[in-house]
Amino acid sequence: MQSRYYTITEYPTGLPREAIFALCEEALPDLREGEVRVRNTWLSVDPYMRGRMSGVRTYIDPFELNAPLQGAAIGEVVESRDSRLKPGDKVRHMAGWRDIAQLPAQDAETLPAFKVPEQAYLGVLGMPGMTAWSGLNRIAEMQPGANVLVSAASGAVGSLAVQLAKTKGGTVVGIAGSQDKLDWLESRGIEAVGYRDKSADELTQDLQRACPEGFDVYYENVGGVILEAALNCLRTYARIAVCGMIARYNDQGESEGPRNIANILINRVRMEGFIVFEHWDHYGEFLDEVGPLVERGEIDYQETVENGLERMPAAFLRLFEGSNRGKMLVEL
Amino acid sequence: MQSRYYTITEYPTGLPREAIFALCEEALPDLREGEVRVRNTWLSVDPYMRGRMSGVRTYIDPFELNAPLQGAAIGEVVESRDSRLKPGDKVRHMAGWRDIAQLPAQDAETLPAFKVPEQAYLGVLGMPGMTAWSGLNRIAEMQPGANVLVSAASGAVGSLAVQLAKTKGGTVVGIAGSQDKLDWLESRGIEAVGYRDKSADELTQDLQRACPEGFDVYYENVGGVILEAALNCLRTYARIAVCGMIARYNDQGESEGPRNIANILINRVRMEGFIVFEHWDHYGEFLDEVGPLVERGEIDYQETVENGLERMPAAFLRLFEGSNRGKMLVEL
Repeated sequence: MQSRYYTITEYPTGLPREAIFALCEEALPDLREGEVRVRNTWLSVDPYMRGRMSGVRTYIDPFELNAPLQGAAIGEVVESRDSRLKPGDKVRHMAGWRDIAQLPAQDAETLPAFKVPEQAYLGVLGMPGMTAWSGLNRIAEMQPGANVLVSAASGAVGSLAVQLAKTKGGTVVGIAGSQDKLDWLESRGIEAVGYRDKSADELTQDLQRACPEGFDVYYENVGGVILEAALNCLRTYARIAVCGMIARYNDQGESEGPRNIANILINRVRMEGFIVFEHWDHYGEFLDEVGPLVERGEIDYQETVENGLERMPAAFLRLFEGSNRGKMLVEL
Repeated sequence: MQSRYYTITEYPTGLPREAIFALCEEALPDLREGEVRVRNTWLSVDPYMRGRMSGVRTYIDPFELNAPLQGAAIGEVVESRDSRLKPGDKVRHMAGWRDIAQLPAQDAETLPAFKVPEQAYLGVLGMPGMTAWSGLNRIAEMQPGANVLVSAASGAVGSLAVQLAKTKGGTVVGIAGSQDKLDWLESRGIEAVGYRDKSADELTQDLQRACPEGFDVYYENVGGVILEAALNCLRTYARIAVCGMIARYNDQGESEGPRNIANILINRVRMEGFIVFEHWDHYGEFLDEVGPLVERGEIDYQETVENGLERMPAAFLRLFEGSNRGKMLVEL
């Protein structure tokens, strides 16, 4: 059986050009004992993948040039040489960026039983949802009633972080760009603050207006000017969960740092970086809490869907244009 | 009885001029029930006091203009209307910047019984020692064998932080300015790195040479370029204890922030600000650990001493010139 997959032929500097992505085809070898073959139905593209398109170590190993790219995917088992999985089983695994995946059965996980569309396990009940939940609960140790600020608040992670925070009370403020994103936030009961064309001081004033008491938790997705403004609006003992800084992923030079880092001392703030993969042993806890909310329709998770394997590079690049809403997916 | 005390007549901007300090005299009222009168013998000056000379709230209340300044002091009880203290008792309290203090007995603490000079309770066994210990142990949660970086490593706090870190093994690197400070660090088995006239990149290289494995703990006293260099030299899960940023105390404008704050994410670093006063309930634990080391002469604590109440402003201002070594004190 043939498998078509994407690779990159060089490490990009700055925003990747579509030309570095190459669609290749290979004949899959026969299945070995313990392996399964999976027909992928949904492929995930995520900002963290930009960090792997680099010879430089960040917090995850770089992608190998000319080898299949990797990423989360949902698919259906079509052939199995392992007793744990049989044809027809729906699974999630990391052999994305391709149509047919062949992998050890132990690396494929049967989808949980919630009554939700299967692609939810790539988004609201997958890595982005788990990232939102881990940052709030495991890193920032959010308490009921806490005031929470979330940047990139309409993105795949941020849109879940604001809603999960809102279920625990307190004022929740989301920072976003375009008017439709701000409107969506307001529709969910979130105080929406736009960041476009604002200096750190202007953004500080808007955040202070939205939450005069200040924030107990800042869910940091962005860096730059927004981090500086957030540092001006924290309460004593605030916690900052640093989950990603998309504004920097394509930076070639160095960007300006927050000039008010001393606020960490003044307010005895704790700021901590994390990557969700290191918290995966708590995935069950996350599912127990968030799965029922999603099943009952209480979380509005949005998706932007492209169709066909050939759209993978374009879908990935849309993440950096800000033109997607919620989770960016490719359906095969 | 007369008491002579210092006050400030205006809030300074930038480095305070000596002219804002005024030496005043008042007749003390009769002692009330529960009060003691103390003849101060040693007065402390500390960098954090600059933060109180400001109408702006930092992490501690501002000093009141034209009222006696406050600060740690050691003295001898000369009169008491409280059963807990009697004339001749040696105490520590916060009514410094004056020769004779009158205060509630409950605000004066009898000196512990270690065989050390009494002024040690203002330095190595007082606030600076407790600050060093709390940052390493309670904030950075330093483990045995950890590699530790300390900035301002010859200062009152830093010189104790490097020595306490060294008792637990691992590579300890101290950053300091002048050659005699660097020599002192080397004499204590600490890797010494000078920061003068170095860019963040140059300092990064020097730190990497001093500790190629990288640091598990960064004891942050300074901010600015040094913080940026330190952020380049951290191991995964490193902890930064932010105990003060003396470089900023006299800043009038904003200073440049670290351009590499994203390293907090990449290395899953935890950075946390603290003030020692909030950890004072652990003072007994600190004394149990560090008191015996000091008594046995295993900690080299240095003092710079000025003589006479009139020298208080000058002693305070020396903190910002970098001309003191170790704990800055005034003996009366």
